[in-house]
Amino acid sequence: MTDLDASPRAAAPTRVQAGPATPTATAQTAHRPLTGPGAALTEGLLHDWQSRNREASLPLALRQLEVAGNLDNLRAAAAAGDSAEPGAASYHGPVFMDSDVYKTLEAIGWELARDPDSGTGQTLAGFADAAITLLEQAQRPDGYLDSYIQVSGEPRYGRLASSHEMYCAGHLIQAAVALSRTAGQGPGGHEELAKRLLAVAQRVADHLVATFGGQERGLDGHPEVETALAELYRETGQRAYLDLARQFVEQRGHGLAGDSGRGHRYLQDHLPIRDTVTLEGHAVRALYLEAGVTDVASETGDADLLAGSVRRWEDMVATKTYLTGGNGSRHSDEAFGDRFELPPDRAYTETCAAIASFHWSWRLLLATGDARYADLMERLLYNAFGASISTNGQRFFYVNPLQRRYDHVEEDDPARRHEWFSCACCPPNIMRLLASVQHYLASTAGDTLYLHQFTGATVTTPLAGGTLDVAVSADLPWSGEVTVRVTQAPAGPCGLALRVPAWSGSPQLLVNGEPVQATAAQGYLTVTRTWQPGDVLAATFDLTPRWVYPHPRIDAVRGCAAVERGPLVYCFEHVDQADGTDLDDLALVAGSGLTESPATLAEIGRTVLVELDARPVRAGLPDELPFTATAPATDPGPVQRATAVPYFQWDNRDGQPMRVWLPGIMAE
Amino acid sequence: MTDLDASPRAAAPTRVQAGPATPTATAQTAHRPLTGPGAALTEGLLHDWQSRNREASLPLALRQLEVAGNLDNLRAAAAAGDSAEPGAASYHGPVFMDSDVYKTLEAIGWELARDPDSGTGQTLAGFADAAITLLEQAQRPDGYLDSYIQVSGEPRYGRLASSHEMYCAGHLIQAAVALSRTAGQGPGGHEELAKRLLAVAQRVADHLVATFGGQERGLDGHPEVETALAELYRETGQRAYLDLARQFVEQRGHGLAGDSGRGHRYLQDHLPIRDTVTLEGHAVRALYLEAGVTDVASETGDADLLAGSVRRWEDMVATKTYLTGGNGSRHSDEAFGDRFELPPDRAYTETCAAIASFHWSWRLLLATGDARYADLMERLLYNAFGASISTNGQRFFYVNPLQRRYDHVEEDDPARRHEWFSCACCPPNIMRLLASVQHYLASTAGDTLYLHQFTGATVTTPLAGGTLDVAVSADLPWSGEVTVRVTQAPAGPCGLALRVPAWSGSPQLLVNGEPVQATAAQGYLTVTRTWQPGDVLAATFDLTPRWVYPHPRIDAVRGCAAVERGPLVYCFEHVDQADGTDLDDLALVAGSGLTESPATLAEIGRTVLVELDARPVRAGLPDELPFTATAPATDPGPVQRATAVPYFQWDNRDGQPMRVWLPGIMAE
Repeated sequence: MTDLDASPRAAAPTRVQAGPATPTATAQTAHRPLTGPGAALTEGLLHDWQSRNREASLPLALRQLEVAGNLDNLRAAAAAGDSAEPGAASYHGPVFMDSDVYKTLEAIGWELARDPDSGTGQTLAGFADAAITLLEQAQRPDGYLDSYIQVSGEPRYGRLASSHEMYCAGHLIQAAVALSRTAGQGPGGHEELAKRLLAVAQRVADHLVATFGGQERGLDGHPEVETALAELYRETGQRAYLDLARQFVEQRGHGLAGDSGRGHRYLQDHLPIRDTVTLEGHAVRALYLEAGVTDVASETGDADLLAGSVRRWEDMVATKTYLTGGNGSRHSDEAFGDRFELPPDRAYTETCAAIASFHWSWRLLLATGDARYADLMERLLYNAFGASISTNGQRFFYVNPLQRRYDHVEEDDPARRHEWFSCACCPPNIMRLLASVQHYLASTAGDTLYLHQFTGATVTTPLAGGTLDVAVSADLPWSGEVTVRVTQAPAGPCGLALRVPAWSGSPQLLVNGEPVQATAAQGYLTVTRTWQPGDVLAATFDLTPRWVYPHPRIDAVRGCAAVERGPLVYCFEHVDQADGTDLDDLALVAGSGLTESPATLAEIGRTVLVELDARPVRAGLPDELPFTATAPATDPGPVQRATAVPYFQWDNRDGQPMRVWLPGIMAE
Repeated sequence: MTDLDASPRAAAPTRVQAGPATPTATAQTAHRPLTGPGAALTEGLLHDWQSRNREASLPLALRQLEVAGNLDNLRAAAAAGDSAEPGAASYHGPVFMDSDVYKTLEAIGWELARDPDSGTGQTLAGFADAAITLLEQAQRPDGYLDSYIQVSGEPRYGRLASSHEMYCAGHLIQAAVALSRTAGQGPGGHEELAKRLLAVAQRVADHLVATFGGQERGLDGHPEVETALAELYRETGQRAYLDLARQFVEQRGHGLAGDSGRGHRYLQDHLPIRDTVTLEGHAVRALYLEAGVTDVASETGDADLLAGSVRRWEDMVATKTYLTGGNGSRHSDEAFGDRFELPPDRAYTETCAAIASFHWSWRLLLATGDARYADLMERLLYNAFGASISTNGQRFFYVNPLQRRYDHVEEDDPARRHEWFSCACCPPNIMRLLASVQHYLASTAGDTLYLHQFTGATVTTPLAGGTLDVAVSADLPWSGEVTVRVTQAPAGPCGLALRVPAWSGSPQLLVNGEPVQATAAQGYLTVTRTWQPGDVLAATFDLTPRWVYPHPRIDAVRGCAAVERGPLVYCFEHVDQADGTDLDDLALVAGSGLTESPATLAEIGRTVLVELDARPVRAGLPDELPFTATAPATDPGPVQRATAVPYFQWDNRDGQPMRVWLPGIMAE
């Protein structure tokens, strides 16, 4: 500990205000995230989601952390001090309850950059202050901090396969990094809070370094600390944190994580990372691990490690990813399935997996500059992730299936959104992503500003020749027009690059209304020129609704079709169909015309509906085994209209059935 | 306890030699099982399975019960006596380890009727003697017996949702009933063993009656004791056992079983049985419960209770049953799924569920006399159940999917058959069924002998006019000829009824080579006449291979076809396809000619292969998301031959992929 104890922040680089996953200057990445004021959301769906997150979701989290006992756990740990006797105090909930507090603190960290002096801002800052005080009290003098272990009296690191001690530490670190990165930002500031939490987090990290660094003592069963340690290195400059992250990444695959009863594959300890070709086991764990792998690869310039992560991302996207962008095909073990095992009804697609995939893809986007990662992030954001939150921001999905049948139940649960969960990993995870979502809109490479996601926002970045300020106006996912108005520009030439989404053709770019030539590379169109304040770069992306069909290897949706519009996956809810048609009696006339109509729906609000032709295919229900000697009759009834809504808006009304995929019959 | 203690066997009816599920004379059933010498297998697949069970499987069980610690648990319980201190002795395995011993004892009970003096017979009898001695030593003076509770020191009945105490008691009772029912049968006899085990079982049952009878103290989370208590009533005449069975059936649905963490539906405690319309939750539990429901309904003449069970059976068969006859669509909770949720790859179809469904269907067959129950029993026997055992009888499937993909894994497991399991409920359950399987071949109604399953066997039954002895010669499932030779007959007319399997047309019946008129009712053809010794009744069932297609509501196999032949479901294994064609690149030319060819395969032995036309449908593997804007190209390559083997014979060779369902393209 000696050299770490000696002024741990001494080696820190000049701290820059930044968002999540901000590589150091020496990291090997094609792109750099925005720093300084960066991006801010001004209008549009993402802006509204972020506001809702602040005003409706975060206050709910503060309440639930009290009700569910997360804060009481920390109080009990603080009260127990070093003299915890097993059973002396009662611990509430699963072993990783602390992480819910940390994710909430991380969300608050990002939020405090915006409006700390508002009523909500003061509430959030007050919560952070109290929670940090509690953490300071609970933390042991040697830096250890984990309320479950401290309250239960279980040995530290005694069952790493399931104790989640380092997983929790990772989320604590990420919360501290968030507060630290936003400390100087925004109208107010929260430097003192940031310093205090970073001190707690560094003491925890130093304890991990002292305990595990350079040894083969064990690995946490739930990856997460790897990316957190890399981020802490970025924030503090302490190389020991990166070294430990790298060590944990390289040590996986040798049984050091132990076995929680679900085997080594479940917790990604079945193969060394460099021998791994496909993501397996618990989806969230596998995806968090890859975020850490990419961080380590970028910071250490390990091209081989990065190439492996890229290959696994490609394998995942091509064979194990749902139309919504989600991952995790099995309820059992919350796991990835085999390649092409993508059942819509049993899709687990945990919300946390969508968030983890988003985080990983962002890191690969920075590392490579390839738009395909931004494509997946957009698909995740508006579908697998977007659907996890109710319109009012106060109910959440943990599991995000692509089909819900009539009379569906999961155990005793009707499978609707919940306000909270006994295992509440998802809601505060949603909150930390939405609170920081503007950081993922743009990045830079050289003297070019890359815009990845289009929504109402201001974007500011220092370039070599000076500051580039732009105001983006866009109303995605509802309409396709995007304008980028330059409000401040460097003196010399610089580039403005727009991602061409995979769902759109390449648009004509206009500058001040005139067509311009753009350079196309890696999925972006770039216009490089000496920009003047007032210049407007414009493009219109094609949001025409479209049919989509599954690859023949996906057994579970063979013969089916679905509908997308721009970045949105659509679905069919029972409530929208004429005459109460049973969804299971409907076949889509695949390839037929798709009609869109803007609408405002009760409980949902603004949307764009898509209507299309369908035909009833009612088959008599069997009164014996549902298998027959003759092929099912294909004698569909007369054409009727079917109505689809954006998948992210489902289950805000009656809890009735939903399908993304319906059988497709070809138009005649 | 008083009136039970007073000579508990006094009220017993004259004990008749019988098989499993033998209703009392006053039970309301359409059919009666065989009693007395009954049926014996003489040749054919079932005979070979039963021999293999005795010579290969049961010795393996005796070894494994020692290795896995089941017997050590009972030894520890015996040693602890009444003074068990928590942690004083170590308990091995899950809480229900005793039940593996009991199922093995039940299998031995049925086996000892056959050849007790052979080497194997002596080994089995010796094991039974030692095990019964152990049980006598372990049982507490008040009748309580459960090694887990006794060794761990946990309170009795303190957590019935998960303790399996009554589940274990149920299997103990069934073992005792088996030994008792066969005690006078066979070349030798084992009256003393039977008496001793029945005494242990009755003391356990009396303890249950004293503890739970007439009260609302709780229900076992795993049904099984209901049918066991009904059977013990049948064996002893003690009405209190039936009353308790009925009480447990009627009390379900009010939360009395508690919650093991998976909710009330999981353990069938979410709805009163009379309000239940569809089977839900853990499949084995739901099916064992229904066996008990049917027993109680039959013994108490409760037509309403019976009708509910019949309706649920119909619902299950029509909407929740796989082509193999198996049940359980979800790995998660080993549960039934929604209606028509029948994924072939994620089919759980636990072996124990197939056995439980077989038991339930037998009870409904007796209650109603309807051949459809025998149809399902046959489907289960040769498919979902048959596949659970390796050709050599020494490896077992717990989970029986209808598809295994390339590189498939379940956690760390390659999903092949295992010699034993840490949760070893299935192997000894297989053994008790195979040891008693001849009891399910036939039953009587009035003066007619009904033959349900056709295989080489002798069948003897007392009818009003005298004994009817027949020798059945049949080589199912390989060939369709069945002859029934009368070897002894009553003086007057009596009926011989043959089930017409659902897979066969109604055959012409011949008596001594001459066509005869037969009466058709409830799925049987009956010939009633004054039979003479030497008379031969003959029929030929149609085993021509046939195509089968799924109901359109089954999303998971939409557009697919499969092949059956007689009672056998077929499957495609990678190893049998020409040129190593990838199974996932193959579409069947549905409706094309099916060619059968008898064969002898290495590791499998005798079989009948079915060949058919298929066409390659190789689609390029995606390098991005596996969803496209155009419908998958349907440009299959030239016709090639594909080869199918009986599903029950799969996974005896190389562990490569298998599919029951393949995409079907129509013949041109």
